[in-house]
Amino acid sequence: MKALYADAARELRLADCDAPAPGPGEVRLRLARGGICGSDLHYFLHGGFGAVRLKEPMILGHEVAGHVEALGDGVTGLAQGDLVAVSPSRPCGACSECLRGLPNQCLNMRFYGSAMPFPHIQGAFREALVAEAGQCVKADGLTPAEAAMAEPLSVVLHAVRQAGGLVGARVLVTGCGPIGVLAILAARRAGAQEIIATDIAENGLAFARKAGADRVLNTAAAPEALAPYSEAKGSLDVLFECSGADAALRAGIAALRPRGRVVQLGLSGDMAVPMMQITAKELSVTGSFRFHEEFATAVAMMQKRLIDVRPLLTHSFPLAEYQTAFETAADRSRAMKVQLEFA
Amino acid sequence: MKALYADAARELRLADCDAPAPGPGEVRLRLARGGICGSDLHYFLHGGFGAVRLKEPMILGHEVAGHVEALGDGVTGLAQGDLVAVSPSRPCGACSECLRGLPNQCLNMRFYGSAMPFPHIQGAFREALVAEAGQCVKADGLTPAEAAMAEPLSVVLHAVRQAGGLVGARVLVTGCGPIGVLAILAARRAGAQEIIATDIAENGLAFARKAGADRVLNTAAAPEALAPYSEAKGSLDVLFECSGADAALRAGIAALRPRGRVVQLGLSGDMAVPMMQITAKELSVTGSFRFHEEFATAVAMMQKRLIDVRPLLTHSFPLAEYQTAFETAADRSRAMKVQLEFA
Amino acid sequence: MKALYADAARELRLADCDAPAPGPGEVRLRLARGGICGSDLHYFLHGGFGAVRLKEPMILGHEVAGHVEALGDGVTGLAQGDLVAVSPSRPCGACSECLRGLPNQCLNMRFYGSAMPFPHIQGAFREALVAEAGQCVKADGLTPAEAAMAEPLSVVLHAVRQAGGLVGARVLVTGCGPIGVLAILAARRAGAQEIIATDIAENGLAFARKAGADRVLNTAAAPEALAPYSEAKGSLDVLFECSGADAALRAGIAALRPRGRVVQLGLSGDMAVPMMQITAKELSVTGSFRFHEEFATAVAMMQKRLIDVRPLLTHSFPLAEYQTAFETAADRSRAMKVQLEFA
Amino acid sequence: MKALYADAARELRLADCDAPAPGPGEVRLRLARGGICGSDLHYFLHGGFGAVRLKEPMILGHEVAGHVEALGDGVTGLAQGDLVAVSPSRPCGACSECLRGLPNQCLNMRFYGSAMPFPHIQGAFREALVAEAGQCVKADGLTPAEAAMAEPLSVVLHAVRQAGGLVGARVLVTGCGPIGVLAILAARRAGAQEIIATDIAENGLAFARKAGADRVLNTAAAPEALAPYSEAKGSLDVLFECSGADAALRAGIAALRPRGRVVQLGLSGDMAVPMMQITAKELSVTGSFRFHEEFATAVAMMQKRLIDVRPLLTHSFPLAEYQTAFETAADRSRAMKVQLEFA
Repeated sequence: MKALYADAARELRLADCDAPAPGPGEVRLRLARGGICGSDLHYFLHGGFGAVRLKEPMILGHEVAGHVEALGDGVTGLAQGDLVAVSPSRPCGACSECLRGLPNQCLNMRFYGSAMPFPHIQGAFREALVAEAGQCVKADGLTPAEAAMAEPLSVVLHAVRQAGGLVGARVLVTGCGPIGVLAILAARRAGAQEIIATDIAENGLAFARKAGADRVLNTAAAPEALAPYSEAKGSLDVLFECSGADAALRAGIAALRPRGRVVQLGLSGDMAVPMMQITAKELSVTGSFRFHEEFATAVAMMQKRLIDVRPLLTHSFPLAEYQTAFETAADRSRAMKVQLEFA
Repeated sequence: MKALYADAARELRLADCDAPAPGPGEVRLRLARGGICGSDLHYFLHGGFGAVRLKEPMILGHEVAGHVEALGDGVTGLAQGDLVAVSPSRPCGACSECLRGLPNQCLNMRFYGSAMPFPHIQGAFREALVAEAGQCVKADGLTPAEAAMAEPLSVVLHAVRQAGGLVGARVLVTGCGPIGVLAILAARRAGAQEIIATDIAENGLAFARKAGADRVLNTAAAPEALAPYSEAKGSLDVLFECSGADAALRAGIAALRPRGRVVQLGLSGDMAVPMMQITAKELSVTGSFRFHEEFATAVAMMQKRLIDVRPLLTHSFPLAEYQTAFETAADRSRAMKVQLEFA
Repeated sequence: MKALYADAARELRLADCDAPAPGPGEVRLRLARGGICGSDLHYFLHGGFGAVRLKEPMILGHEVAGHVEALGDGVTGLAQGDLVAVSPSRPCGACSECLRGLPNQCLNMRFYGSAMPFPHIQGAFREALVAEAGQCVKADGLTPAEAAMAEPLSVVLHAVRQAGGLVGARVLVTGCGPIGVLAILAARRAGAQEIIATDIAENGLAFARKAGADRVLNTAAAPEALAPYSEAKGSLDVLFECSGADAALRAGIAALRPRGRVVQLGLSGDMAVPMMQITAKELSVTGSFRFHEEFATAVAMMQKRLIDVRPLLTHSFPLAEYQTAFETAADRSRAMKVQLEFA
Repeated sequence: MKALYADAARELRLADCDAPAPGPGEVRLRLARGGICGSDLHYFLHGGFGAVRLKEPMILGHEVAGHVEALGDGVTGLAQGDLVAVSPSRPCGACSECLRGLPNQCLNMRFYGSAMPFPHIQGAFREALVAEAGQCVKADGLTPAEAAMAEPLSVVLHAVRQAGGLVGARVLVTGCGPIGVLAILAARRAGAQEIIATDIAENGLAFARKAGADRVLNTAAAPEALAPYSEAKGSLDVLFECSGADAALRAGIAALRPRGRVVQLGLSGDMAVPMMQITAKELSVTGSFRFHEEFATAVAMMQKRLIDVRPLLTHSFPLAEYQTAFETAADRSRAMKVQLEFA
């Protein structure tokens, strides 16, 4: 069985990994699809992000779906051949954060493919994977490609919950990569009345429009595009900041009305924040990090066609073509979501 | 110009009413459609509800849409012939509740067709109506029948906001009259993951299913139908109680998990509440009353096809057949939403 | 070693109980004080409350403090002779409610002296008690009598957190038994601006005044005493309902202004609720049940003299006089908090 | 009648101002005390702050108390000679923000002594002042010096409400000027269990200790003083950031545990924010700006001795010595709150 390792920036390789028989409560999966996420790209392009650095070879990947191949003792509710989406969220269930109801903040989290702790947590880009049954959500009715979208969809569902109620809200999404475009879908599902999306590239904006944004604005072409929303004290209710760019945050904050809410997604370093406006308009800026129970919700939302991620699935490549896959994913002018095909 | 008056229980009549030229900031409308609401029915059937009683003849109706016929001075954004949904919510904008941001709680509210204050606030079932421009929301792209649904849709959008976030929630709706069925639509739009609906009659349940309920349960046929959801400490997150029936509230409370939320809609009198369960499971019961800014949201949601109320529109009758219309609306075995045709 | 058992209504007895050496992570305590709570009284007077019934002999008591006598392996932070308040809250730390951050809703809770589950959970009125170290909060600077108040104080601190922010709030407390009077202290500590207390007996009102209520009203003497607060749509922000009486809840609800909040404490059966007012004023009624992390807060609040419970400590009796102690506690015309002396 | 004008940085002068007879609903006051606020100091030292600049002579001051001298028609509840605290908050009561229940965000706010709008809003450092009766809160039982503290106390009460519930919370206050020290008092009153305060100067820390901080840390002397609170993912619940310093915000954010809350007070410009930590720990940063209904609460809290601001009153000078007063206020090594004496 092969897995995809990152040794350092620009150094990926396929190598053997084991796939033992599943223990009690576990299942062995034959992987079908795996999506390349922004953090995978950071490891590929830069060997990490911020203070998080590759210090040993690490299997990448945490957006995966596959078919059940073998069941460990005591597993119920799953059968051989079932398509499942696999949650990479593996909290310990016993630390102080887990017991506060914040599994995504688990102090001992073993999230697939993360170099935050050392030893690193090995990822899920492997032909066969042994997982806890509890990580596996049946995905009947979905394609493997859709099922592998459960993970990034969970991220934005969590972000939408961090935002508080959106029914009737006017929402701005800055940055139309996969997370931004999924945020549009999730905000719409959560009842947003009007959704405006900005990006500095046309490709993302085209997907934003397909995802249902009421209005898309190219802030490279028109840096003042949000000015009409910023009159008086601003007019928008919620900003999902998915770009990590100071300029986007600044323009978004100007467009928020008093008591408006910013949800910051994605992991950026320091940002220069117009604190005067946050104070004077009494805005709130809230972080959103990963997810947990939203994973099952994500699968259910796709199964019921309450959220349709299919327009984002732009590219897929056989595992052996991982280099092309990552290069493609890094090219935001062409790609939205790029996946690896495992079988 | 004719209007539909209720003089007492079972005593409706058409009579003349005036329709003067619109003053500054006002418009005169030619009404197109008017939906019969539960409170209209209460006036018709019982001359009121609870302590609210008809004490003088009152024009019924508050779910109306029509076409702009004449514009008063200073009105902008509307043109002759425009189809508009008319909000019956007319808060004073100056009392302590308005200044707390609670216009629906206005101490001087002049909500159409309400016998709560005396003199009563005359309603909107009239061939021509003079309204404030601010009450009128343009409804291009909708039929008059849909536009007249903006009012009850606003009621449930407000209720959904009272409920707090619903993304991923498991929701129970008890009572599948028009408000219950609209609550299903609104809860879905707000991100509910699973929706269960109960009623004691099959007709309502059929509409619930059409509105997207995942499961419908006839609690007359199977009084213990919710028992599977009530195991351990219960499993559902939110109850929209739309029946006003003690038994429905009791069964719903049993099915809610700890910290579950009940939103009580509709106006019932005293109810026997299992307070031991509310205390021990730390449930919350929150009232929801009318709406205000949700009215424009309701129109926008229908225009964007984010909520589709058309399956609820079962009957309409010319104004002259008001007696048949009200009898039909009172027959829950046949009707869902019954409207009057004004033109 | 003796413990106080309840066999049935009005049937208390002292009998031997064991006090083994503490296991790993445990401590053995020599009990000093134990307060008689409302639920103890219910077991004594009625053999239970609501559906909760004594089905086997049960040691009563859950408001206790004592001195450390022996330490099990691995216990740190405690030393022999330390005075500790002992939390009766023993959640499992592994069920779905614990993992939602709701230990007080634990599905496997072993709260001292509770006949809710069967076998019953034996209580803490015993001369020696073996407890988990994590249940024991050091109480230096407090008397044993005060330390034994940590439990009921925790109940009201939890209730105050259920209420949401109280800074500047106008608060009503109905029912001035120990929980009601403690609710006054806790609401004041949480920033309540004005506190009004009602009861049907003068004794409780006298304590309410001592606890800092701005105004006390005898609603037996003057049933309409709250009427001035009920004008227009009402004027108070929060009601802590500590009486379990329909009339108190009804009068309190009338006095709440729109969006006012009721926190229901104590365990009553069904209550007749004026649902029309809850709906029309959009009130919320929220249950509050026990506590968990508030226990350490309660001790700290007393240690820092941020809350002073000493005026409530009206009576104490040697363990052998348990009969007199319970009779005294049952006489609300004389007693506030009655405690047993264990050493 | 004299008033204190700022013409530009370092250019203060006394000059005549009028004090006409009070109109309907107004009162004329003889001022007693006026506190020098941080924004007054900014006008004095720098001619403004951020983009806010003096563009015309402006009377300074908005922390004032005085005695009623004359009553306009229709004023009730006030009598000649009454000591009143005067709220500088004068929202319009008619704009969209006022009608959302956010008077402190009023689009037409006329807050005393503010150069934000042009023409500037003239301030209240004048021997006689005509104000709306609704701005005047009776302050019997307080000294004029205390009454003049109602304004800054309102600022922190508002901030505490922005923070959400504090009962049992572990709170950090960074920056121990008057606002920081008042934040300690307000957080304690709102139920904070533990309060830690940091500053880079000993003078402020001494006041913090007097105000009841459990621990004070000089982060100039020991830059890593907060490190013990920052272990694992951090341990504190709430940060009131009152310094406007990047380093303080950064250290405070490191010490917050997941889902911790920052309330930003005071008006700084851009700040460099460690957004990675905000995202990964899902912190929220919320602004707090001025106040409105908290003003009456502030007076009541002082009258009931629930908050005691007297230790902060370090200096006062006759109006004629305004130059010395401002120089003293600018010297943080000596002063806490400096007031002008008007009579």
